[in-house]
Amino acid sequence: MASPRSDSGSDVRARILKAAHDLFTKQGFQSTTTKEISARARVAEPTVFRHFGSKVELFEAAILEPFNRVVDEWTRSWSEMSTEITLEQLAENLVDSLYSVIWEDRKVFRELLAARSDPNSALYPSAVAISAQFREGLSAVLDVGIDIARTRELVYVDPPATIGAVASMIIGSVLLGDWAYPANRRTPGRTRMVREMARLIVDGIAHRHP
Amino acid sequence: MASPRSDSGSDVRARILKAAHDLFTKQGFQSTTTKEISARARVAEPTVFRHFGSKVELFEAAILEPFNRVVDEWTRSWSEMSTEITLEQLAENLVDSLYSVIWEDRKVFRELLAARSDPNSALYPSAVAISAQFREGLSAVLDVGIDIARTRELVYVDPPATIGAVASMIIGSVLLGDWAYPANRRTPGRTRMVREMARLIVDGIAHRHP
Repeated sequence: MASPRSDSGSDVRARILKAAHDLFTKQGFQSTTTKEISARARVAEPTVFRHFGSKVELFEAAILEPFNRVVDEWTRSWSEMSTEITLEQLAENLVDSLYSVIWEDRKVFRELLAARSDPNSALYPSAVAISAQFREGLSAVLDVGIDIARTRELVYVDPPATIGAVASMIIGSVLLGDWAYPANRRTPGRTRMVREMARLIVDGIAHRHP
Repeated sequence: MASPRSDSGSDVRARILKAAHDLFTKQGFQSTTTKEISARARVAEPTVFRHFGSKVELFEAAILEPFNRVVDEWTRSWSEMSTEITLEQLAENLVDSLYSVIWEDRKVFRELLAARSDPNSALYPSAVAISAQFREGLSAVLDVGIDIARTRELVYVDPPATIGAVASMIIGSVLLGDWAYPANRRTPGRTRMVREMARLIVDGIAHRHP
């Protein structure tokens, strides 16, 4: 095992984030302590605070990191490969990666969703901060979407409404699992849902007329 | 003002439901009392219990009644007007009425969403019962959807996934308002969202090939 002292600052930061993400996802915010996180990351507890300030800030960073990575990769993949990549690939890529991020952290996101509409909740400030970051990420997706529409001569009538509908569908398909699927049928898993949503998005956008 | 005694049982029931719905929607479950409801409905408090058994049962009936009405009307409109009605009308009708039901009761649905993932919540049993009824309603929508696809020769590949995606989108577009809309833009209102979602559904379904 490498000595913590030999690590660079960014290694340590990444290790703390990963440990925090693992524990918050499994146990939720309340029952996870910075002591546990530091033990799992093999750093001293003060190191956690030096890098992240507080448990709340660490929580927000750990939950947002995978989401921000998805948005970055997706917007970059578009600008780098704009000519070769198909609309189908773009849509599948976005749906699959966003669905996976929400799915992996679904317990935390259910907590955050509840906290977002309860100002008395201890998690309320984090829910406000994280939801605001979500909307910033979707704003970047929107800008790229407008670019895509222009390049491919799509009639992209109302971009904020399209992004809102698409994001609601992807996030909702995970978090509204108890509400939005027909009774008496097996609830479709990830592969079926990703395929279906990518299909709805591509066909739903590509056939409009001016 | 008509004397309560002159009303038929179903008038009284409807009046209690309406009063309960108004108060629960405005004040939430906890802070609404059956005494207030009976006063607003102009009936004696025991009458409320004779019709609905308990505050919880009245709550569930009051919240489900508009949703069940939407599903009934939508499935009936299809079987009655199957030849004249266009796919666009069917989709707009479904999106508009479901969006409106969730929008009107959005405070209650946010409470129920939070309660559904918290078995310790006082509202947990109601959240389970109401979400199960939602899924029953979507099952009826699914049956009609399969019928529509057959009649119009649509390639309806994976109906439970389609219904799950569409319901997630409509419910999510209201309840995930803080999460799913791009930052720095005005959040689209009902008219824009209903139009956009109906468009995505119709084009998203109508262009598939075997």
